[in-house]
Amino acid sequence: MNLIWTEESSKYVFEHRLFSIRESLCRSPSGKTGVYTAMDAPDWAVVVPVLEGPQGRRFVMVRQWRHGARELSLEFPGGVFESGENPEEAAAREMEEETAYRPSRVTRLGEMSPNPAIMGNHVHFFLAEGLTDTGKQRLDEDEYMNVELFPVEEVIRNMGKPPYIHALMAAALTLYLQRGAAS
Amino acid sequence: MNLIWTEESSKYVFEHRLFSIRESLCRSPSGKTGVYTAMDAPDWAVVVPVLEGPQGRRFVMVRQWRHGARELSLEFPGGVFESGENPEEAAAREMEEETAYRPSRVTRLGEMSPNPAIMGNHVHFFLAEGLTDTGKQRLDEDEYMNVELFPVEEVIRNMGKPPYIHALMAAALTLYLQRGAAS
Repeated sequence: MNLIWTEESSKYVFEHRLFSIRESLCRSPSGKTGVYTAMDAPDWAVVVPVLEGPQGRRFVMVRQWRHGARELSLEFPGGVFESGENPEEAAAREMEEETAYRPSRVTRLGEMSPNPAIMGNHVHFFLAEGLTDTGKQRLDEDEYMNVELFPVEEVIRNMGKPPYIHALMAAALTLYLQRGAAS
Repeated sequence: MNLIWTEESSKYVFEHRLFSIRESLCRSPSGKTGVYTAMDAPDWAVVVPVLEGPQGRRFVMVRQWRHGARELSLEFPGGVFESGENPEEAAAREMEEETAYRPSRVTRLGEMSPNPAIMGNHVHFFLAEGLTDTGKQRLDEDEYMNVELFPVEEVIRNMGKPPYIHALMAAALTLYLQRGAAS
């Protein structure tokens, strides 16, 4: 079956600093048209920081309040790409700002759509290794987060249970584990 | 550090059939206030249908155009919860409509926030087993999708590479694998 739609026109009906709402007139594979609504946003980075040490392999994670879910969430560090930024540099910058750990090596794990049904942006996943603790967390004025270390196995076991509520972190974990399986 | 924010007031500034945009005045742990924008939507179901047979263990997946990402996406079936619907029944209904397979057993895998930073809803993950092919796909008028079967190992290996672009499907896979590790 032909599954490809074509977009005839598109306009923004709501604009905000973090995202915009797009309404598009689209033509279906059988030629019918309809209006479909989606959200465009800058791309996001999620960084999986792995700390190797006498206590084994641990993830560096951040615990913070999230205004969408209205609850605390335990996550890998990350954030929004600034325009024109190199992806690996953006990833390293975001994680260092949030966690105070600086990576010596940043590797791409992959890229996905956070939700292709309604989102137009991408989320880029990175692995960060060779971490040095600079001791200097640099948070925005309205950021409040705790940096916490957890054994890799504990995170794998608990992903999906509060406070590990963030589906994109579970997606990051899939790519991390996939890489381990392939190496 | 105290990480808990409180919401002083909240209003919708954009409303649509699939989601609404909420602006909330929130007070930070240190007492400062700011306005935060998020999206509320009905909850979603993602169903991981496992078909056992002479060809081994395979996932039933659907390939469809996605208007947010403007590309084809290969996904587990799923959809939006209808108001008041029992979650397991909603999951079974969604997968049968999209794939024509009816499950005899639906098990909860877990529940996450699709993105707690900006989304207020939840995504519920289910495992569907004991599948019977009814031969009757029941699609909405504007739904065009192919049903395809893939060995479990192939999906694990390819998740995150096009057309496996949907991060919530990678999250579903994490819960599926977690369950296997625990059993």
